[in-house]
Amino acid sequence: MNTRLNIVKIGGHVLDDDAALEKFLHHFALLDEPKILVHGGGKQASQLSRQLGIEPKLINGRRITDASTLEVVTMVYGGLINKKVVTRLQQFGCNALGLTGADGNLIRATRRPPDEVDYGFAGDVTPKGINTSLLYFLLRQNTVPVIAPLTHENGTLLNTNADTLASVLAIALCMHFHIRLVYCFEKRGVLHNPNDDQSVIPVINTASYHQLLAEGVINNGMLPKLQTAFAAAQQGVPEVIITHAANFTAKHHAEIEGTRIMK
Amino acid sequence: MNTRLNIVKIGGHVLDDDAALEKFLHHFALLDEPKILVHGGGKQASQLSRQLGIEPKLINGRRITDASTLEVVTMVYGGLINKKVVTRLQQFGCNALGLTGADGNLIRATRRPPDEVDYGFAGDVTPKGINTSLLYFLLRQNTVPVIAPLTHENGTLLNTNADTLASVLAIALCMHFHIRLVYCFEKRGVLHNPNDDQSVIPVINTASYHQLLAEGVINNGMLPKLQTAFAAAQQGVPEVIITHAANFTAKHHAEIEGTRIMK
Repeated sequence: MNTRLNIVKIGGHVLDDDAALEKFLHHFALLDEPKILVHGGGKQASQLSRQLGIEPKLINGRRITDASTLEVVTMVYGGLINKKVVTRLQQFGCNALGLTGADGNLIRATRRPPDEVDYGFAGDVTPKGINTSLLYFLLRQNTVPVIAPLTHENGTLLNTNADTLASVLAIALCMHFHIRLVYCFEKRGVLHNPNDDQSVIPVINTASYHQLLAEGVINNGMLPKLQTAFAAAQQGVPEVIITHAANFTAKHHAEIEGTRIMK
Repeated sequence: MNTRLNIVKIGGHVLDDDAALEKFLHHFALLDEPKILVHGGGKQASQLSRQLGIEPKLINGRRITDASTLEVVTMVYGGLINKKVVTRLQQFGCNALGLTGADGNLIRATRRPPDEVDYGFAGDVTPKGINTSLLYFLLRQNTVPVIAPLTHENGTLLNTNADTLASVLAIALCMHFHIRLVYCFEKRGVLHNPNDDQSVIPVINTASYHQLLAEGVINNGMLPKLQTAFAAAQQGVPEVIITHAANFTAKHHAEIEGTRIMK
């Protein structure tokens, strides 16, 4: 059986909350298995944008990345958040190393064509764009890649959705590892009733997914995350979980609570 | 004889001038020898500081790094400039990988004690703090480390002078490589007359250095750079050159014009 590799996405309000982030990173550092962390940072990027007088523009939850906004996300994702996470993990004894998709040619993307909407410097990724050998190589040295949601195309940096990136990384690596892909955010999973934090749906498979969609149970904000989670499950990732950051535990063999996505 | 390793520091106005930076990076990318790039970015950090309403404070050319300023330099050095340089090098076919001192525990520093001046989150480095095995390991893969002037102490990021960092890296690596340490900036070398760009002093050794100091020829702005250059020469780095970025050439065996520092 292949070694298990944990690909963990951290995003949402947890990145804003120092105590919650610290607790999560402590558990992540303690987990004694190969692991990769992918982080977001959209809220922090919007905040810095506003401080610099650039009003953030988002369409369907995706950021319009003009040249100034690209500088903002490069500073926030590649600098501020990535290095905060890396230094904190170092403090916890985890040999983290921060990367964007340009570093070591890790993630090649394609600039999204300006069809209905021109998203600017936005990059679309597929598993073929992942430089898996760089990741194997770092993991073999017990180094933990911490990946910012930035990719590149021929030397142009591109902004890429972090949920999508985590999914594509999982698909690219699932030939050689038993992948556990965990999306951590501020909800306990996919909720039946968005106002009731206890209404976590324990398992969603393709059939129930379509039923939930038809019933209008899944709210719009969850759709992109669920789509990327399903893409991973459908392309062979054996464990896909959506959960609260506080549910992420260092106990190897314990099941992580939350919503499991099955194909 | 050991393989030659080029450690190149780029800083000053060149980082501000896109055309000059591109030309420099193109030559750097073409150089077919092991190489490490260290960059500064003080001017850009001061500019972002002001945009965010934080007035930069410098004493003897060294930045007072309070908590807000640490966030600014993390964004500018670790994000904006580091990733701009890395993506441009990727475009030129050079497999660059950006690092701060926290990434892969590359550079451990000591927070400068608040004696006469409290420099805040400022880190002092020695050759012992360099994780040379990570650098060997990347260089063996033909990966080119691009290092931002940030270090860490037990999970706290610290701001470190880029000239000093380049010198300390050179000293740490000179046991295993024949090091060529090149400081690139906007002057053609150390000038006899700061108003005459043609008055480059071709060689400075310890004796002539003390004489130039006594004569007041070396201006204050050059002193910290020269001190770090001398530290490298005195601790066994065989080639140390201070020059204009435009003098950096990809031709291996050509001498680089500028000022050579000898012990």
